[in-house]
Amino acid sequence: MTMTGTDAVAARYGVAFGGTAPPLEHVNAVLAAQLAHRSVRAYLSDPLPESVLPTLVAAAQSAASSGNLQLWSVIAVRDPERRARLAELAAGQAHIAQAPLLLVWLADLARARRIARSRRGDAEGADFVESALVGFIDAALAAQNAALAAESLGLGTVYIGALRNHPVEVAAELGLPSHVVAAFGLVVGYPDPSGTAAVKPRLPQDAVLHHETYDLTRQDAPVAAYDEVLTAFYAAEGLPGRWIDRVADRFGSVAGLRGRDRLRAALLQLGFPLR
Amino acid sequence: MTMTGTDAVAARYGVAFGGTAPPLEHVNAVLAAQLAHRSVRAYLSDPLPESVLPTLVAAAQSAASSGNLQLWSVIAVRDPERRARLAELAAGQAHIAQAPLLLVWLADLARARRIARSRRGDAEGADFVESALVGFIDAALAAQNAALAAESLGLGTVYIGALRNHPVEVAAELGLPSHVVAAFGLVVGYPDPSGTAAVKPRLPQDAVLHHETYDLTRQDAPVAAYDEVLTAFYAAEGLPGRWIDRVADRFGSVAGLRGRDRLRAALLQLGFPLR
Repeated sequence: MTMTGTDAVAARYGVAFGGTAPPLEHVNAVLAAQLAHRSVRAYLSDPLPESVLPTLVAAAQSAASSGNLQLWSVIAVRDPERRARLAELAAGQAHIAQAPLLLVWLADLARARRIARSRRGDAEGADFVESALVGFIDAALAAQNAALAAESLGLGTVYIGALRNHPVEVAAELGLPSHVVAAFGLVVGYPDPSGTAAVKPRLPQDAVLHHETYDLTRQDAPVAAYDEVLTAFYAAEGLPGRWIDRVADRFGSVAGLRGRDRLRAALLQLGFPLR
Repeated sequence: MTMTGTDAVAARYGVAFGGTAPPLEHVNAVLAAQLAHRSVRAYLSDPLPESVLPTLVAAAQSAASSGNLQLWSVIAVRDPERRARLAELAAGQAHIAQAPLLLVWLADLARARRIARSRRGDAEGADFVESALVGFIDAALAAQNAALAAESLGLGTVYIGALRNHPVEVAAELGLPSHVVAAFGLVVGYPDPSGTAAVKPRLPQDAVLHHETYDLTRQDAPVAAYDEVLTAFYAAEGLPGRWIDRVADRFGSVAGLRGRDRLRAALLQLGFPLR
């Protein structure tokens, strides 16, 4: 099922649900792969060829890294029992146990601290919010390259932010030393052809793209338009509710974080003082 | 100058400097673009075609977003005077003023807070470390797609982490409302053909890829091997010093952060309470 560039960008902006797509002239193989992204939540259990993992890691390592510090690592979890336990810790998401591979992306200050301590006798610079943040950003840049590479090979992926629901228990399961934390997971496998996974429409470019300076109130109209588009999209998928209510449910109260309000305490415990 | 997949992976792991590359069988167009990444720090001032910006934003919006919350925005800065001022705030990096476009990627909780407040009368969930982190991760996933898309179009890019050197001043320059912060910049332009920009070798896969559980001490040998590779690479580039000393200089003391030890205070001031 090949789409043209125009079809792909129309799907990305929900034109079928009333959305507005920008005109795109350049749709090469890279852009086509990017535009076609969808999160897959139904997998076959078929194992992956051995060559896939080193390929995804090479893609990940090819992303930029702040100061070439490379403050991330990744754990490949294939053991079905470990995947089942991690699925349990991540809000019971069945696809973690179903697909053959879970990549756990780590913000990793342990390696750099070990180097700094051995050369300078101290690693105080790693204790700051800035350093933790570079670990998370480095991990995200790397993971996004790996996710796109996997999709370009015909595999499905889905990110697992729910690995932050129980960071201390996840760290214990993965044997993480102090100063390392699971940022998020990435499930990789063959999509179940009987499953459905649509391209999800995103906000109009007007809502996220600013010129020279930021404009908050100008976003109200495109946000309202998007809410109509996504509500129609949800309805077509058999899902109730509106996008703005999902956003409001997440941030309207502490309960919306479903336990992730404890992340700061967990990070302190895991060796990220966040100074 | 087209490289084969084998050449590309050899460059990524510094085989010419003694490094070891993994065997890669799958090198399609996406992987070829990823493996060829290099940070470009010398640009022509030629403007970009109008179609580039919406293309990069469509690529960015096609990356996954946690819960589809889309907690990021981007500012396209083209005004030469604003770019010059931002270059000044970012450790004087001349390429910010030189290239025609600076994309500033924002962790943006303002849009979601505005929705939550209008629907629930409160946005307390946005006050937590978790919510800020999702903003930074969302921004990074989006930016990496845009960076790769730009490179696939023949453009050069370089990330600007130094936008976090003076976050409050950068926020003022860009007119950011409360609850929005510049995560990092991305310079985009045509590489100056007289400039040099080599593919930078990365750590051996053994150092960053773990199986099932994490192993810290096993990394010592590949880290030491990498230090030899990168020191040889630096020497070939005319740069002094060793990689491990650059890491040690960054984290060995607070001074290595060059002012970014103040990031936590800046985030509190910008409306990220980090609870």
